[in-house]
Amino acid sequence: MSAPATQAQEPASREDRGAPAYDEAWFAARAQAGIQRLKAYDPGHDLVALRRRFGEANLAELGSNENPYGPSPQARAAILDSLHALHRYPDPLGADLKRALAAKHGVDVAQVQLGNGSHELLMQLAQVFAGPGDEVVFSRYGFAVFALATQAAGATMRIVEALPRDAAMPCGHDLDAIAAAIGPATRLVYVANPNNPTGTWFGREAMIAFLDRVPADVLVVMDEAYAEMAEAPDYASALSLLGRYPNLAITRTFSKAYGLAGLRVGYLLAQPGLVQVMDRLRESFNVNGPALAACVAALADEAHLDWACARNAEQRAALAAALQQRGLRVFPSQTNFVLVEFGPRTAQIEAALVERGVILRPMAGYGLADCLRISVGSPDENRRLLAALDQVLT
Amino acid sequence: MSAPATQAQEPASREDRGAPAYDEAWFAARAQAGIQRLKAYDPGHDLVALRRRFGEANLAELGSNENPYGPSPQARAAILDSLHALHRYPDPLGADLKRALAAKHGVDVAQVQLGNGSHELLMQLAQVFAGPGDEVVFSRYGFAVFALATQAAGATMRIVEALPRDAAMPCGHDLDAIAAAIGPATRLVYVANPNNPTGTWFGREAMIAFLDRVPADVLVVMDEAYAEMAEAPDYASALSLLGRYPNLAITRTFSKAYGLAGLRVGYLLAQPGLVQVMDRLRESFNVNGPALAACVAALADEAHLDWACARNAEQRAALAAALQQRGLRVFPSQTNFVLVEFGPRTAQIEAALVERGVILRPMAGYGLADCLRISVGSPDENRRLLAALDQVLT
Repeated sequence: MSAPATQAQEPASREDRGAPAYDEAWFAARAQAGIQRLKAYDPGHDLVALRRRFGEANLAELGSNENPYGPSPQARAAILDSLHALHRYPDPLGADLKRALAAKHGVDVAQVQLGNGSHELLMQLAQVFAGPGDEVVFSRYGFAVFALATQAAGATMRIVEALPRDAAMPCGHDLDAIAAAIGPATRLVYVANPNNPTGTWFGREAMIAFLDRVPADVLVVMDEAYAEMAEAPDYASALSLLGRYPNLAITRTFSKAYGLAGLRVGYLLAQPGLVQVMDRLRESFNVNGPALAACVAALADEAHLDWACARNAEQRAALAAALQQRGLRVFPSQTNFVLVEFGPRTAQIEAALVERGVILRPMAGYGLADCLRISVGSPDENRRLLAALDQVLT
Repeated sequence: MSAPATQAQEPASREDRGAPAYDEAWFAARAQAGIQRLKAYDPGHDLVALRRRFGEANLAELGSNENPYGPSPQARAAILDSLHALHRYPDPLGADLKRALAAKHGVDVAQVQLGNGSHELLMQLAQVFAGPGDEVVFSRYGFAVFALATQAAGATMRIVEALPRDAAMPCGHDLDAIAAAIGPATRLVYVANPNNPTGTWFGREAMIAFLDRVPADVLVVMDEAYAEMAEAPDYASALSLLGRYPNLAITRTFSKAYGLAGLRVGYLLAQPGLVQVMDRLRESFNVNGPALAACVAALADEAHLDWACARNAEQRAALAAALQQRGLRVFPSQTNFVLVEFGPRTAQIEAALVERGVILRPMAGYGLADCLRISVGSPDENRRLLAALDQVLT
């Protein structure tokens, strides 16, 4: 069958001749099974449109867990220094950034892989290690990309019930149940510590007990996007366990504590052999030139990182207390956001806040329709949130 | 089987206990079949190392088909304007850039998809539409990513012999043979016009005759990475045919004529339905903030684009003539590079040029071991190439 000779200007004639409409359904029917079931990630409100409507200065953008203090000034300076080379491809090896990350974390350069955001790395881990007939295990209320990565790979999602609402870590990972859900078809387990969107975390002892139960040929992907902001005494990164568990891979990002969400840089720490296999799939220039330069500079400015994390912790405590004073239930958090129960009127409250220029993240897509996720903003943003909330709640 | 309790500091003990070495082979054995066969893209020489060795100013970097004139100054200005928002996620819809691209090309915004380089889009097209048991057809000496995309998707490569060396378009696409190779298992056909690394192209009549032979449910991906630089009277973009062939998808890039290889932005033009299905797989922030801003600005500066393309055409002709004067065979090109036959001493010549700071792209990986691909540089770079060549060839 030849392609129809319909002209661009005459779409109607195609229908006249009984030819098919080449719409989403037509193309989806020709896609891989995993893609047929896949729904695109929901990035929340259209902030470009809201900025145009309200004016950027009048918005409190608290829906995307961004760092209100911005990146190190050195990161901006590094971008300026990189602008003479925009016409050159970036270093395909990302050598300077990998070296800096390896030095910071005390691992070998061969254990570091860079991604266009940790999103890319989380997607590729499933693409490499899971396919049709394989299972990927993760918690309900786990990071949304876990489900997308599994579906895109055509693998089966094995979603494990989270801890109950009245637990010390409400809606947090139930590590015992996750370990128990691992079966012969399981190739990959995604966990997040701390987890988005719940803000919950688990400690070192629980993590070790969990890793001890995972078979060595099941990969455990530990997303630590918010690790730099965790300060609870019982929180521990899995970094020190990389040598002990060869099936462990850790993902991190420059989008949160480093304040560089606009640049899309994440990284993976794992066994060199795992990195080598992941590297086969990597697009050779997947991290762009200014982004590589900015991240090297941001990594070197530990004072800025520490300052931003300390400010976040201070504001997180203040915001949580202020919300609790208003009778709201605030989930425990070691991140730069808090999950908050608003009850049956959540959707109306959220919409009313948007009308006042306060942008939070609705949680219905996560199955938490009575909650909103609130990023910890600057002192000024948090004040504006609370003022708008006082109007809306009365 | 539990993960071994070996400590990070004692890797030897694992071997002592007869546990496996968790090396590349171990992880590859647990990867999907397509990944097991996949080899990473070869980006050419390690330019970072060469710049350190020779000093950037002493190199003639002619191996990566970059634009020596750089991007529009407006692109740099747009990046500066974007730096206040590095901590914000980029617009997940890429709305401004999509709108500008749609206006430029006379298509609907819904027909535009953005990628982290066209590399990402070429990979995802195979990931969406081809899998194990499916065939993907493309030409020998076609763009290297065609093979990587096919293998990563686990599909079967059907490589079609190219036109012979003594044809008018040596090593170019044999469109008749490509059409004839399409069978019941074929899901996707990749073609490039003009093609990298051969520089060859095909005309509008041949393209239409080819598209008429392709079944409507086989997707034709036409990579036009070098389209802006083509000026031959018989060259035509497939843009005007998008309405006529719903199974046609065109990829383009900001890395070549726009001089923005460092930013990684490519785009796809196709039916809205195809874009919708591709969008399910897209990582929501796949193109970064400064890159989006720079590309909008670069697109508006048509004078700079025209100037750079005119300079390229003038230098391409001069370089080709100078190489021919030296007795070398230069393949016809409508791009910013020329493929050149150097005969049995090619590898030695290439190595000797590197020693003189002149970086070209070896072609052994493409099965063209007696050729080198030479990017058309600035007048100064081309002079340095020719001077080094005169030393090496005598």
